[in-house]
Amino acid sequence: MTALDLGRPVVVTGGAGAIGAILVRALLDRGATVRVVDNFSSGRREHLPDPEVVPHLSVVDADIRTRSTFESAMAGAGSVWHLAANPDIRRGTEEPNLDLEHGTIGTANVLEAARRSDVPHVLFSSSSVVYGFPTQFPTPESYGPLMPQSLYGASKLASEGLVSAYAHCYGMRGTIFRFANIIGPAMTHGVIFDFFRKLERAPDRLEVLGDGRQSKSYLTTEDCVAAMLVAAERGAGPVEAYNLGTRDRTSVREIAERVVAATGGRATIEYTGGDRGWTGDIPQQLLAIDRITALGWTPRWTSTEAVDRTVRALADRRS
Amino acid sequence: MTALDLGRPVVVTGGAGAIGAILVRALLDRGATVRVVDNFSSGRREHLPDPEVVPHLSVVDADIRTRSTFESAMAGAGSVWHLAANPDIRRGTEEPNLDLEHGTIGTANVLEAARRSDVPHVLFSSSSVVYGFPTQFPTPESYGPLMPQSLYGASKLASEGLVSAYAHCYGMRGTIFRFANIIGPAMTHGVIFDFFRKLERAPDRLEVLGDGRQSKSYLTTEDCVAAMLVAAERGAGPVEAYNLGTRDRTSVREIAERVVAATGGRATIEYTGGDRGWTGDIPQQLLAIDRITALGWTPRWTSTEAVDRTVRALADRRS
Repeated sequence: MTALDLGRPVVVTGGAGAIGAILVRALLDRGATVRVVDNFSSGRREHLPDPEVVPHLSVVDADIRTRSTFESAMAGAGSVWHLAANPDIRRGTEEPNLDLEHGTIGTANVLEAARRSDVPHVLFSSSSVVYGFPTQFPTPESYGPLMPQSLYGASKLASEGLVSAYAHCYGMRGTIFRFANIIGPAMTHGVIFDFFRKLERAPDRLEVLGDGRQSKSYLTTEDCVAAMLVAAERGAGPVEAYNLGTRDRTSVREIAERVVAATGGRATIEYTGGDRGWTGDIPQQLLAIDRITALGWTPRWTSTEAVDRTVRALADRRS
Repeated sequence: MTALDLGRPVVVTGGAGAIGAILVRALLDRGATVRVVDNFSSGRREHLPDPEVVPHLSVVDADIRTRSTFESAMAGAGSVWHLAANPDIRRGTEEPNLDLEHGTIGTANVLEAARRSDVPHVLFSSSSVVYGFPTQFPTPESYGPLMPQSLYGASKLASEGLVSAYAHCYGMRGTIFRFANIIGPAMTHGVIFDFFRKLERAPDRLEVLGDGRQSKSYLTTEDCVAAMLVAAERGAGPVEAYNLGTRDRTSVREIAERVVAATGGRATIEYTGGDRGWTGDIPQQLLAIDRITALGWTPRWTSTEAVDRTVRALADRRS
């Protein structure tokens, strides 16, 4: 299987998102020509360098639900990094079509466009939620059964299956990343962002969904992108899945306490109770990362450090 | 979780197909009111009893790709048995949208219709192809990773994920059946049917795709339906997956020899060579069936007997 080819243009769907924009900058730093495909529903232009100033960057305002709007971006590309998706797991439970359309059908469109343009390598941002409630921690990539608890998780599993089938049927290479909780200052969703938003509205009281004992591993967007590049460059095909996370985890209680401390320490923390924060929440998550560390990557920051960095960045921006 | 409720109407999608029609008869025999939803693309009206004569049976000519065409059949139902799908794995490789639309999107539509009508139990016909090329035989339900080799397999994995997510998010019960090769005289696809069709066209020569050493387990449609009913009645929720197969397997070479013998023994068997019959083929398949046998079901016929019965039935029909 071909190693990552940066001599040809690289397509990044969701390239204006919190993870995508950091990936785009890393690819530009390596001299690649980058074509971003984004519908700017959660991605933001200000996350990206100005394409007027950076000639190797182009931005296509298109929606992956409609193949004709972005298909031309695939011409001559050496790889497609498919990150575009609905980022809000809870919203997917309220609108059952959301993850089907933006996730599964979107991925099918991206793969079909890549196949029609003979793009040899597709890299896909999946999630640890494909494991459902695992009974093994840390959870390895070979874990089964895969019984997702949310429609978001179902769309990630469906997309993985499509990547696998396209790779095997049409001779492409497929690289699948199963993300832990990826956090960074540009995120627009997730527990840390939610806590800050709640404290902006009501500075005296922080309501935490669940009993606070939900415990997961948090990886910075920088570490995440570094790991993706290592897997792309050093992995072997035709289809590989990589867990991306840290070796430790952090509880929701610890996160709540850090956010309160970073915002002046005034708020009282109140727990709604129960072992899950919300329908579809996976309360315990710790991924086995031996496969990606064997390729030479190691997380620069632990889960606790990643939380600290993100909390400080959001607190600084707030004040 | 509720046991199977036959006091309320039962919906069977794909109910006019080779497996569906036998399920429909079994449900009618148990006194159920049955509503068949079928688009008659591969299902046939003559597989079913005449609804004019059997008042507990109704047939809706509808396509699961469009929810509005079949949604009314869900009203008041106690369970939905979702069997409708594209039955032709190879065609799905040539038409990449086929399994996405008839499989994944169809399943999402069936689940959403069931949810809107508060149907408490969905049963889904998945396939052993979700295991991709497993490295463990017999393959248990907990096997991972799930890396399908065909778009048909991708659509089955996607549908399983949707069943799991709907069950967990909306309080339904989901029962997933991972079928071995299901065979019977009413099949319109599969290796035995293909061999008979080839010999009808050219009686002197039987071309076999691959080296003939592909070896899989074959289960009769009758045994398959009996197992589905046992799992539905005795299984526990919220989501269960059951492998349905036999404990032995039969090679493609053995099947070819039996078909040639049953049709006069004149044809020369020619192998195209290679360990796979065709793109997307899974050459080795043997499922661990301990989970379903623990509920009290056991296959009446071995794989070899199932092949024999089907070969004889097709040979009798031919002469």
